[in-house]
Formats: sequence, C-alpha cells, structure tokens
Amino acid sequence: MPKQKNAISPTRQEDFPEWYQQVVRAADLAENSEVRGCMVIKPWGYGLWEQIQSQLDSMFKATGHKNAYFPLLIPLSYLEKEAEHAEGFATECAVVTHHRLEAQAGEDGKTKMIPTGELTEPFVIRPTSETIIGAAFSRWIESYRDLPLLINQWANVMRWEMRPRLFLRTAEFLWQEGHTVHETDGEAWEETEKILDIYEKFAREHLAIPVITGEKTENERFPGAERTLCIEAMVQDRKAIQAGTSHFLGQNFSKASDISFAGRDGTKQFGWTTSWGVSTRLVGTLIMAHGDDDGVIIPPRVAPTQVVILPVIPKEEVREEVLNSATALADALQKQTYCGEPVRVEIDKREMQGGAKNWEWIKKGVPVRIEIGPRDIEKGTVAVVRRDTPPKEKQFLGREEALSSMATILGDIQQSLLDRAMELREQHSRKIDSMDDFVAYFTAENPDKPEIHGGFALCHWAGSNEDEEKLAKDYKVTIRCIPTNKEFVEEGTCILTGKPSQQRVIFAKAY
Amino acid sequence: MPKQKNAISPTRQEDFPEWYQQVVRAADLAENSEVRGCMVIKPWGYGLWEQIQSQLDSMFKATGHKNAYFPLLIPLSYLEKEAEHAEGFATECAVVTHHRLEAQAGEDGKTKMIPTGELTEPFVIRPTSETIIGAAFSRWIESYRDLPLLINQWANVMRWEMRPRLFLRTAEFLWQEGHTVHETDGEAWEETEKILDIYEKFAREHLAIPVITGEKTENERFPGAERTLCIEAMVQDRKAIQAGTSHFLGQNFSKASDISFAGRDGTKQFGWTTSWGVSTRLVGTLIMAHGDDDGVIIPPRVAPTQVVILPVIPKEEVREEVLNSATALADALQKQTYCGEPVRVEIDKREMQGGAKNWEWIKKGVPVRIEIGPRDIEKGTVAVVRRDTPPKEKQFLGREEALSSMATILGDIQQSLLDRAMELREQHSRKIDSMDDFVAYFTAENPDKPEIHGGFALCHWAGSNEDEEKLAKDYKVTIRCIPTNKEFVEEGTCILTGKPSQQRVIFAKAY
Repeated sequence: MPKQKNAISPTRQEDFPEWYQQVVRAADLAENSEVRGCMVIKPWGYGLWEQIQSQLDSMFKATGHKNAYFPLLIPLSYLEKEAEHAEGFATECAVVTHHRLEAQAGEDGKTKMIPTGELTEPFVIRPTSETIIGAAFSRWIESYRDLPLLINQWANVMRWEMRPRLFLRTAEFLWQEGHTVHETDGEAWEETEKILDIYEKFAREHLAIPVITGEKTENERFPGAERTLCIEAMVQDRKAIQAGTSHFLGQNFSKASDISFAGRDGTKQFGWTTSWGVSTRLVGTLIMAHGDDDGVIIPPRVAPTQVVILPVIPKEEVREEVLNSATALADALQKQTYCGEPVRVEIDKREMQGGAKNWEWIKKGVPVRIEIGPRDIEKGTVAVVRRDTPPKEKQFLGREEALSSMATILGDIQQSLLDRAMELREQHSRKIDSMDDFVAYFTAENPDKPEIHGGFALCHWAGSNEDEEKLAKDYKVTIRCIPTNKEFVEEGTCILTGKPSQQRVIFAKAY
Repeated sequence: MPKQKNAISPTRQEDFPEWYQQVVRAADLAENSEVRGCMVIKPWGYGLWEQIQSQLDSMFKATGHKNAYFPLLIPLSYLEKEAEHAEGFATECAVVTHHRLEAQAGEDGKTKMIPTGELTEPFVIRPTSETIIGAAFSRWIESYRDLPLLINQWANVMRWEMRPRLFLRTAEFLWQEGHTVHETDGEAWEETEKILDIYEKFAREHLAIPVITGEKTENERFPGAERTLCIEAMVQDRKAIQAGTSHFLGQNFSKASDISFAGRDGTKQFGWTTSWGVSTRLVGTLIMAHGDDDGVIIPPRVAPTQVVILPVIPKEEVREEVLNSATALADALQKQTYCGEPVRVEIDKREMQGGAKNWEWIKKGVPVRIEIGPRDIEKGTVAVVRRDTPPKEKQFLGREEALSSMATILGDIQQSLLDRAMELREQHSRKIDSMDDFVAYFTAENPDKPEIHGGFALCHWAGSNEDEEKLAKDYKVTIRCIPTNKEFVEEGTCILTGKPSQQRVIFAKAY
C-alpha cells in the first residue's frame, strides 16, 4: 500500500523513537520548551492527563485516601536523613541557593538580573517527597488511633535529566505520590499490594494497557525502600516501560523522620510506611502502546473528547443548516452515557479544508469522528468513523442508531485496543532457558537494528546484583520484575549461573 | 454569656490576627512547615481547595478556556524581557543555580550534601508565568485564525515572603493563571472584564462573599500590565482582601515575547494579551469572612463534606444498630442533590468522646451536623444542627423530612452567610468627604487598638501617585479600587487636593 501522505514519517517500523517524537508533535500533545528538559503540555495532552488524574483520584478516594499538599522545596538537611535515599537522588537535584535578584545594567545597556540573597541552607526542588512529608507525619501522628494515615498528593516534581524525552523522561513532570503510615508491618504491605492492584486495574480498564505486576530486584529498588512493586507495560517496539511503582518502605523513613506513635501497650513505636506513584509518563506509555502510523489512538475512557463532529459544508448556503444539525446531534450525544458519564463531544466548526481537519483529528487520536453534511441530513444518516479501523472505513448509521449505539462503539474500541496490546505482548513474550538463546533473542534477531530487541524474555534467574549489572551493560537488558502471577512459579535453573531457581523473571530492554 | 470552653482563644474581638492563626489550626486546614514561608495544606483545607478548583474550572471551561501546563523554571533571560515585570518580582524570586548534589562526609561523620553542577544560566521558580507562557504562545500563533487563544494553568508558584501568613501570604501558593491572546484591543479588554465577572459571581454564589469589582490605580497595578481589575472583599476586622485580579496587558508582553501573527490584511501584528488569577488566598479570605469564635464556617457549596453524621452510642450493645441506621441515612442523603450535585456526606465512626468529636466538626465548619442515637431511631427522628446558628440549637426532624429538606437547609445556610457578609460590609462602608473625617475614621475610632480600622471609606480622589503613597505610609490605608459600579460615579472634590473628581474610590486597610 502506498504511504498515506498524511501519515507520520517515519513509520513505527522505520524508526520507532523518531516516530514517537513526531507523533507527540503531530497530535499536539506536548512540546519541548527552551528550559532544558522541561516540556510544555499542550491542551490536548493536558486534557488527557486531566482524565487520568480525575479517574485515578476517584479510585484513591474510594479506598480511603485523602489529598493534601506539601512544600515544593526540601531543605538539604532533610535529604541527609536517609543516606541511601539522598545518594539515590543527589545527581539529579535542582538546587535553590538564592532568594532574590538584583537588576544591573549590562554592557549592552540592557538590564541583567543577578542572583542575590544567598540562603544559609539551600533547598532542592522535590524529586519526591518522602522526607518533607515524613516531617509533617511526625507532627501529625501521636497514637495508634491516628493510624492508618492515608495521604496522596498531586504535584510537580523535578529530576534533572540529561537525556529528556517528552512524557517519558522529563526534568519536570506531573505525578501523584501516595504516602501512608501503618501500625504494623502487615498492614503496610497490604497497602503496597492494594495500590499495585489499583494501578494494574487502571492501566488495563482505563488505558487499555495490559501490565505485568511484579517486584523489582534489589538493583532496581527505590532508594530507601525495602521492597518495590511495579507495573510493567510492553509497547510496540517490544520494550518495557515501568508505568507505576508502589514501595514498601519498612521503618526506614519513619526512623529517619521520627514518625512514631504510642502503641496499644503505651510504648513508643515507629510507623510502617509506604509510598507510590504514577506520572505523566503514563501518557507516553499510552502513545507508544496504541499509536499507529497515522497518529495517536486514545482509549475512549481517557479521551478528553470521545466523539468529534465534523460538519461538511460544500457551499456557504448550507452552513447554517449543517451547523444546526451538528449542534442538535452533539446535544443528543451528550445525553448518552459511557462508563457512567456523559459522552464527551465536540463540534469542530473551524473554517478549514475538510481533509486537513479530518487528519488533525486522526492524528490526535479521537476515538470516533462523525461527519455530517447536507446529504446526510436529507437521508437522516451520519457517517461514523472509528479511530481503530482504517481512516476510510465509514459506517453510515441512522441518527437514532448512531446515538443509541455510541456507548457500544466506544466500548468496542476500548476493548479492541486492549486486545491488540495483549496480543502484542503474548506474541513477544518467550520462555528462554539458556544464555545462548538469551543473547540471540536480544541481539541476533535484527542485526541491522540492534536497538530492536526481542521482547519479554521469561527466564530462571539466581544471579547476583553484579551479574544483573553485567547483563545490563552488555545487552542493555534488565530484569523488569519478578512477576506476581503464579504462572511464573516453577522449578528451574538460572540461565547464567545454573543455580536452582523457584520462578521465572522478566528480562527486557526498557525505557 | 460565659466563654465556651471549646471556643477559639482569643476571640475575633480580642485579637483578630491571632484568632485567624488559631482558627486555621483548630480547623485542621493548614500548618506552617519548617520550610520558611511554605505551608502544608492538610486534607480538610485541601478538600476545600479542590472544591474551589473544580467549580472555577467548570466556569473557565464553559467560557471556552482550556488547561495546559508550562515549565516551573524560568530562565533569567526571559524575565529580563519585560523590564517593569522583572523589577516587580526581583525581590521575591527563588533562584536555582545548581543541578546536582555531592555527598561529603561531615566533621561529625554524617553525610552532608553540597550543591554542585553550577548552571550557566540560573533559573527562577515561576512567581507568575507571563514570560514562559509568552515564549510558547509566540511559537503557537501564526495567523489571526489562531486567535483568540484562551489558556489556563493550575499550578504552584513562588514569591519569597518575609512575613508569611497561612493561606493569605505564603512563599509557595497554589493558583490558577489564565493567559489569553486576542486579535484586537477590544476583545482583550472584553476578556479582562468577562473574567472579573466570573470571579465576582464565584465569590458571591459559591464562597458567599460579596466582593466589590473595580480597577486598581497605577500604584497597585500588576508589574507590566496596562490595567488591573480586581475583586475586593471585606473581612470581619473590616480590612480589605484582594481576592482575585484580571489584567489587561495591552501589547507589552506580546512585544517582549514576540507574540505576533499575520493579520487579516497579511501584515505582521502583535497580539493583545490578558492574564488573571485567583489562589489559595481565597481560602484565607473565606475563613476571615465567615469564621466565628467557635471556628471556621464553610459555605455549603464549597464544603468538602456538607453533612456529617455523628452516631451517638451510649452503650456498646447499640453500636451496630446505630451505625447501620447512620449508614442508611448517609446513603439516602447522598441521593439528594444540592446545586445539581449529590450531597457530600460523611459518617464519623471514630471511637471518641461525643462532645469532643462534635467540637472538632464545629471548628472545621461543616455546614450541617446530624446526630443519631438509639432514642432517635426509636422515634424515627434525627437531630439536625446548622453551623450558622448557635451550637446548641438543634432541630429534631423526622428522617424523611431531614432528607427532603436537606437541600433547602444547605441553601439557607449559604444565603445566611452571604447576607451576614453583606450586612457587615454595608455597616462598615461610609462616604467620607474630608481629610479630617478620613483620619478620624481610620485612627480615632479605636484609639487603644489602632490596628482596627474603620472599614471601606468611599472618597472622591484626584491625588497623585505620591499622594497615595503618603496616605499609605501615614495611615496604612490604600485605594483598594476604583469601583466599576455606577453608583460610585458622581461629581465631587478630592478629599486631599480639593480637585474635581468624577467618582468615589474605596480606601481601606488591607491584607
């Protein structure tokens, strides 16, 4: 088939990383700013994040969590409290050292601003908030009656990135970070797992991304955590993306920040804490999971606009009639519900060439486009086009039928995206039982393009941290997780060391 | 009447500023953090902000605005583009100068973190985003067809404060900042006014705060703006609070940031821009407007919880029955609607002494408390207590009646708060026509407590900027605004200079 002139160039097959950059731009989701590593999230991208945010927020609230807000700036002395944590984030901290500017006349006559008012103690912009929230929790908790404390924060964070990539890895990003304190070890662990379940369910049901739940190895753990659980997605170049993490922090942070309470027996005890987060990285994951060579495809549940109505106006005399008909259709569609909420509809009334307008919406990935022109009005029909089928595949439906079947159509698209993503993952997951096969899988398949790897390699493993690091260095392959699912549990021998192993782990190249 | 033992100490009359600090703490809304000037917004305070945020957001979206997100950090060179703007914010900018930390062993053996990786160009944390958003708009806009561009951002900002006060004036605060670009002068001005109307309506209908709309004098204008409109509230110590501003920026920022477009005639033209914002300061305004000596009073429309159900459990045997009855009542109440949304209900099941629990909710200002115990269940009644009437004033209502009248009760409370605030303002607004009366009004009324001022002085004014500054210095009184309302337009003579004046302005002490 000849390449569509409107398609994204290069295609996914030709150059996946470049396709990603192009598709983000073409869909008008975000752009790089002149501030190194910081992105501008444009209205369509932010609208998507708003949907993710409000839907996840409901899930957190339904499980008893409340939102709060903590300071952006963290004193250096707070970071120093937990050594492993401090070292983990030291290389990527933005540091505030002054609190005012002085205007000076530059040599060119222009005003220059010079930092002044040096701070006695510098601050870092939060890369994550365990230490600053720990200080508050230490004040809030007095007795076991104050537990569990279940708090979430929606915020921006900063981790200085040398190789930023829109949504996936940016110096500033938006996220939610949950922070909880529990009376016992067991309750904190239960929370860690409960959140992972919420993340998995959200990814699957809302983002149409099947994710594998599992635990990170020691090498990949959050700095300061005792255990880190994660959800891992496979995207279309068969790499893995860590899409969310839930950390069991034991008593590391409660001891560092004195989060203590009078226990049931009256003695002083330290709380057991967790922290967990997902970020705007989910947007990048979604794009890489579902996009095609025409643009982004947004799953209906999280689409800022689920249905766009495109009035077809062949001549000026029919403009009013067509626009009125489109407005009536939009009003009626908004009375339909999908997943318990009114269908989100928009009419694109801009005066521009119809083909160009249509392609804008294809690139943006709106789930359903409806075209309506004078002939449709005459016949009482509309032309419905789904984003998950080829752009020319129109269904002509009666107006009433289009209305009554819209929830079903949206549901079908949601399901077909999930099915495709599931199929991709199944197709590119393989049990591998020797180092030779392992090396071949990750290098030999595509000798011309060594960056295209095999997929998820399900291997027995009993190697050391150093062994893991060596594989990462030699093949850019890491253990994504030790999966939770029982199907991975079986006796076997480690592909590298030959030592006995009780379950398979997942190796993959990753973002 | 003897002072309630649970009341806030001091009372509003005794010491209003201290009452404010105490009431914020007693209501568990926010607290100071160890980070100078930065507050922790606790769940009850953040829940209130979430209501404000989502309700305002709907109003912005209904008028065609879309949300987006721009970088937290602003290069110094951006600030330098608009000289007046840069100077206006220079003294309160947090400056980022380094992008990593190095761990060093301190003399005491502990790890110390030292800033390293000095940046070639330092950044400031946004005190407001005109310059960074202007850079994006300059990229986005090519032709008059791209206009108007109507963008809003919900974000944190930082203005280094030497004398912070929770919610009213903090180094970091949360806000929304709207930024728009228009083809013509007239359209930009229309937008500036439209937003002011939204702010006024939101303050009145949602926060139950009657605000005066008007324009700032040159002295009080936003740095870089041509005209600044504002809403001004009076709070219970009769001072004014500027609760929101809407700026007409003319072409100042579009010229500084090259926000230009090809006009209808094909020539290059500069856009006309506006910016506008409200912040977490609204929470402080609300507390000072409505609180009483028992605690905060939250207007029903923005209360995170509108009705709290307090189960009365005199003996352990009835616990289950009472809790079941309370749950059934909560379920039924949530099916009622107030202002088009389900009533927000919470059951407080904590095991603690009933009086203490009741007082917690009084202090938090929940609009309606419902007590339900074994005797109520027997009689089929509940005890309903409104927060805007004395704490002992219970209404015993049949369960069905309580359900069916809840929306009316909430509406009555909302209205009574607005009425009270309006009465306060009317009582303490006075036409003043001479400097003697002016001085007496702001100083002599309460010679023991010079910090308690008279209220809003409605005066004719034709003085200079320097005259204004002198009044501010001598009496701590400033022109809050030149009111929009026609009733202020009349011929007169300036109280200070005796020059002719066309309308009265409002002088007041202010936060």
